[in-house]
Amino acid sequence: MRDFSDGHGWLSINTATVRRQEGRERGLLDIVGQCEAQGIRAISPWRDQVAAAGLEATARAVKAAGLSLSGYCRGGMFTATDAAGLEAAAQDNRRAVDEAATLGAACLVLVVGALPGALDGRPRSKDIGLARRQVEDGLGALLEYARSCGMPLAIEPLHPMYAADRACVNTLEQALDLCDALDPAAGGDLGVAVDVYHTWWDPKLEAQVRRAGAARLLAFHVCDWLTPTTDLLNDRGMMGDGVIDIPKIRGWVEDALVAIGSWPHGALLLSATGLGLVAFGLYALILSRYGHIRSPDLDPTDALKRMGA
Amino acid sequence: MRDFSDGHGWLSINTATVRRQEGRERGLLDIVGQCEAQGIRAISPWRDQVAAAGLEATARAVKAAGLSLSGYCRGGMFTATDAAGLEAAAQDNRRAVDEAATLGAACLVLVVGALPGALDGRPRSKDIGLARRQVEDGLGALLEYARSCGMPLAIEPLHPMYAADRACVNTLEQALDLCDALDPAAGGDLGVAVDVYHTWWDPKLEAQVRRAGAARLLAFHVCDWLTPTTDLLNDRGMMGDGVIDIPKIRGWVEDALVAIGSWPHGALLLSATGLGLVAFGLYALILSRYGHIRSPDLDPTDALKRMGA
Repeated sequence: MRDFSDGHGWLSINTATVRRQEGRERGLLDIVGQCEAQGIRAISPWRDQVAAAGLEATARAVKAAGLSLSGYCRGGMFTATDAAGLEAAAQDNRRAVDEAATLGAACLVLVVGALPGALDGRPRSKDIGLARRQVEDGLGALLEYARSCGMPLAIEPLHPMYAADRACVNTLEQALDLCDALDPAAGGDLGVAVDVYHTWWDPKLEAQVRRAGAARLLAFHVCDWLTPTTDLLNDRGMMGDGVIDIPKIRGWVEDALVAIGSWPHGALLLSATGLGLVAFGLYALILSRYGHIRSPDLDPTDALKRMGA
Repeated sequence: MRDFSDGHGWLSINTATVRRQEGRERGLLDIVGQCEAQGIRAISPWRDQVAAAGLEATARAVKAAGLSLSGYCRGGMFTATDAAGLEAAAQDNRRAVDEAATLGAACLVLVVGALPGALDGRPRSKDIGLARRQVEDGLGALLEYARSCGMPLAIEPLHPMYAADRACVNTLEQALDLCDALDPAAGGDLGVAVDVYHTWWDPKLEAQVRRAGAARLLAFHVCDWLTPTTDLLNDRGMMGDGVIDIPKIRGWVEDALVAIGSWPHGALLLSATGLGLVAFGLYALILSRYGHIRSPDLDPTDALKRMGA
């Protein structure tokens, strides 16, 4: 596992976590400047912060500061009570893809939505199964558009305590099942954002991280689970202050990123072909040297000598 | 699905929900009296309430009131930081089994425990994997004792937001995996308590309820998930006030209780054998009537007439 103790080169700041400073809202361009001053190399900004600062202005500031965007927060919220609501969500998601592309983000992070109205405390449905079907439909349509823009989509499974009001995708397994259904080629267009806060409790986390592999792991978010947790949304801890064994989970993620089993099919096929060619070449050389093929015109010993072997 | 709209014959009251009345603690014997007066036919009392009222006195009061115990809350809390702690938990759990037997409870409900110390806000470990292994070990040992007492154990998977401080078994699938590992015969000694509050969000709930079946479904708890939820422990809703589609989940449970696929292996094998015998018997009769076996001494027509067929 990589040693992060002597630097924060791999750290990206979710700008929602620093929007309130000294009791007031801090603009995104200010935050970009603060990150530059602190040697932070990547951020993950939120759409409303970008909208307030201006999309083009943000893109310029990010570029000038030499920052990269580990992700763009957030698309999703696919669910609705009627066709007009579903279409409005679809349009808004396409705009989010466009913005992410303008900003040069590595991926668009998706919080997929849940029971319509629940986020405002007025749920208009109890049918979480319907919400999940709407998410799958909306995501499938958005994937076509995002592919055409070259913008990867990262489904972020949220903690089950957000199943009613924020996201009805609540385990990594469920997110990966969606990925496999909508993007079986696993070429990098659709993947997951794994947040330890949302997933640390999951008894299948290690196995599902391995299943995700390099083809699906698009983002890794860290914070910590405090005991007791006094607020469902805003009582998250700094890394180390809570009970999540973050290094262990990061180890699983890093292992999955390099494991051959996690390679997408194309890369695996190419590697297998390459290995096959190498093996056949070696076999040919050995056969020509020690086998029964002899020709005064083709002495492999000389040929090998000339190749410097 | 059964119609519960015209009576509460199937309702059991978890006595923790009525312990505070008009600002003060109400004793369990009082609660038993109140249930009897309201025509409530079953309760699920808590250990501390029973201890305060006295075990024998409670057993007598429950019997006098004609109440049945749908379950006894609760055993579990198997995890600890050292061997002494594990042994203390084991002893306490055996006492819980004894009490449940004295009270004539249908099962002992288990909240299995999580990170030692976390419930007191001072977690002494971040190793949820170790906690899960301790739970499996403790449960396996308790199962032997509970079997000898004839007391079924019901694992209650708790909502993942309680993974740190109350229970590290957080999905029905995980609970059933534990059941299958420790009690492969599925003869009714070990099962699950399905609480809609803890499980409603689970995308695999329907499939896992079906998997559980009659052999594992020992209890079904209902309340509701409110939006917003303002407290992780005490902000539960009355049935119907929240977003859980309780009738749908109850339908899954009722279907699972009668589905042949949910029968334990023994019952399934016996049924298959019985059906096989019936089929062979019919085949023999048909063969003897229409086939090539003829004997003046054995006229099946007469035999059937004598049997009244």
